[in-house]
Amino acid sequence: MRKKWIAEFIGSYFLVFAGTGAVIVNTLTSSLTHIGVAITFGLVVMALIYAFGHVSGAHFNPAVTLAFLFLRQIDARTALSFVVTQCLGAVAASLTLLYMFGHVGSLGATMPAGSWQQSAVMEFILTFALMLVILASAVHAKASKSFAGIAIGGTVALEAMFAGPVSGASMNPARSLGPALVSGSLSYLWLYIVCTTAGAIVAAYVYNLLHE
Amino acid sequence: MRKKWIAEFIGSYFLVFAGTGAVIVNTLTSSLTHIGVAITFGLVVMALIYAFGHVSGAHFNPAVTLAFLFLRQIDARTALSFVVTQCLGAVAASLTLLYMFGHVGSLGATMPAGSWQQSAVMEFILTFALMLVILASAVHAKASKSFAGIAIGGTVALEAMFAGPVSGASMNPARSLGPALVSGSLSYLWLYIVCTTAGAIVAAYVYNLLHE
Amino acid sequence: MRKKWIAEFIGSYFLVFAGTGAVIVNTLTSSLTHIGVAITFGLVVMALIYAFGHVSGAHFNPAVTLAFLFLRQIDARTALSFVVTQCLGAVAASLTLLYMFGHVGSLGATMPAGSWQQSAVMEFILTFALMLVILASAVHAKASKSFAGIAIGGTVALEAMFAGPVSGASMNPARSLGPALVSGSLSYLWLYIVCTTAGAIVAAYVYNLLHE
Amino acid sequence: MRKKWIAEFIGSYFLVFAGTGAVIVNTLTSSLTHIGVAITFGLVVMALIYAFGHVSGAHFNPAVTLAFLFLRQIDARTALSFVVTQCLGAVAASLTLLYMFGHVGSLGATMPAGSWQQSAVMEFILTFALMLVILASAVHAKASKSFAGIAIGGTVALEAMFAGPVSGASMNPARSLGPALVSGSLSYLWLYIVCTTAGAIVAAYVYNLLHE
Repeated sequence: MRKKWIAEFIGSYFLVFAGTGAVIVNTLTSSLTHIGVAITFGLVVMALIYAFGHVSGAHFNPAVTLAFLFLRQIDARTALSFVVTQCLGAVAASLTLLYMFGHVGSLGATMPAGSWQQSAVMEFILTFALMLVILASAVHAKASKSFAGIAIGGTVALEAMFAGPVSGASMNPARSLGPALVSGSLSYLWLYIVCTTAGAIVAAYVYNLLHE
Repeated sequence: MRKKWIAEFIGSYFLVFAGTGAVIVNTLTSSLTHIGVAITFGLVVMALIYAFGHVSGAHFNPAVTLAFLFLRQIDARTALSFVVTQCLGAVAASLTLLYMFGHVGSLGATMPAGSWQQSAVMEFILTFALMLVILASAVHAKASKSFAGIAIGGTVALEAMFAGPVSGASMNPARSLGPALVSGSLSYLWLYIVCTTAGAIVAAYVYNLLHE
Repeated sequence: MRKKWIAEFIGSYFLVFAGTGAVIVNTLTSSLTHIGVAITFGLVVMALIYAFGHVSGAHFNPAVTLAFLFLRQIDARTALSFVVTQCLGAVAASLTLLYMFGHVGSLGATMPAGSWQQSAVMEFILTFALMLVILASAVHAKASKSFAGIAIGGTVALEAMFAGPVSGASMNPARSLGPALVSGSLSYLWLYIVCTTAGAIVAAYVYNLLHE
Repeated sequence: MRKKWIAEFIGSYFLVFAGTGAVIVNTLTSSLTHIGVAITFGLVVMALIYAFGHVSGAHFNPAVTLAFLFLRQIDARTALSFVVTQCLGAVAASLTLLYMFGHVGSLGATMPAGSWQQSAVMEFILTFALMLVILASAVHAKASKSFAGIAIGGTVALEAMFAGPVSGASMNPARSLGPALVSGSLSYLWLYIVCTTAGAIVAAYVYNLLHE
């Protein structure tokens, strides 16, 4: 279990360090553009799955862990310890970025660009689709499982690409928690916790329909 | 069969939601640029193939389904049910985008930038090449089939990249139908139905020459 | 053999249609930028390898075919027929583009941006590296051959990315011949035939050192 | 052993030729943008791993070689010969670029954009993450090793993307040595040698915790 915690901590740390680091560096230098930020998020998820998929399952995302709990593919104690570890990793990453760059914007915290209702719908759909791709490409008995890292990283990249300018494209409560907590931008944090988790669990439910 | 319909519905829904969503978000924010839109289309097709290829064959495209019917790899009843499901998924996606963003442009409907003849030739060639890559990388006996998702998603990305500014790079009647119907921009819909389907069927014919 | 010729013709046709089509569309609309052009070239080579690698070997490039002849992996008659087929495919693609877009620039013909000596050195190194990646990833006994499409397409994308603004990053006599012949821009065609072929053959020689 | 040296020399040569070549060409033409430079670095590493991974292990990076020495996966003599070969390849690439383009900027030498402390922390974290991905995706007994090229190339691309504007995203003493030596910009070379090597060795240590 200790190995799994190390993998989930390092994975969540590096996901938030690279992904929100890209937002911060782009705020400071304008050199990545939104395209570069979206590619960074997709590639870091892809690389981490190939690095840690065979160690911890490579969740790095409390919504994903809770959806696996819903499907009873993970027990409640492990799920809880994963969620705590993921949040600690994310907060540690935001603290590192604060130390390195100071208070830049909100350290990459996710925020609705338009109405919160629009972002709520968006985050629900994004995480629903992400979780369905995870289950269908990495768990389904007939899937080409070794390609799951490419499919899932690609999904994160494309969702960050088209939905980033709308809702920030979080899809991940820990990714939103880290910068929100460290920068004190907590106003919409609930949305990024509730809607992403709801989307992932509904995806798990739909996957059951597809599967059985 | 129910599983296949769910897969084709969700796949076509998410293809149109992400792809034409990218067009809409770029119209509103200019942050994706044409490059980001093309990458979104390619990645969503790639991810959906790894998610649903082993469930329904991952068509999400009436032209592809009709070409498989032409090759008798699918029977007429299944083909018809797939085409209907794909169109319903695409329309549902455009309705969701209308609800979320309002009447932005034509909701990502495809339209010739120059003459319609130019776009007709382009859509024919694009879908011909796409269908040939599908058959040669995913169906051919000696193909590395597990790589087909990358080859086909890559083909969609590259065709969207170079031909998007000319014809919109539909390659898919359902992808054109959804936004056209919901936004009422029906003027050139026939072109995106006829030329894509013709291209896919001619590709199936040429593939037979290559194969036997 | 007929199947191989069809594969080489369609592959060379589509490589030049998509790749130089991207140059032409970017000249007309400025929407792809150099990045989009380079990505198009890389993805089309990648997709075509997964589509036709198991049919003809997926050369689509006279320099590659001549290097395989040098290594005696292909006989002289087949090599000659491949080179002719590739050139016919490339010319057909440039004629299609001329018909669709008219005389735009030089239809994507390659031209030195600085001195011809600089481009000569560049094309030699580019094709040397491309051919070495081809041999080491697709032919070497211990290679993960199914990944060769990604490695080779990636090499074309990266070489187009960094060297395109210098020499046009041809790496392929047929890719240079098509637009040069159809647009009548023959001034530096010799360079793109001689230096690419020399680079590929020297790579084959170095590969022999590595291998035996 | 001679084969391994040829592979490490050519790999390090082409990594620096393409990667810092991209920086130089972008300085001269502004056509790649930072995104194109980052993609070039990622793709060249990916392609070289599929080309030479089965020959020499595809290090091309003294920090990686020293981390493998720390883990006793390589003996001291081989490690030393690899480091020398990698540095020679990098210097040869910078000399070629100098010959082709003249003194452009510092030939792509890495330099802190802000304080050197910030870049020191960044290079440590970047190389730590890169080395951990290398070990976890290419060495770990349960890893899908054939995907390591994609995971590692993706890591280089994403780190170059988000950290390039901060520290230059070297992650590789040889990649920094070549342009620094040939252009005479030696001021911060120590940082790119010390911090990258420290990051890689600490990653090897953490990997041991994860593994045993």
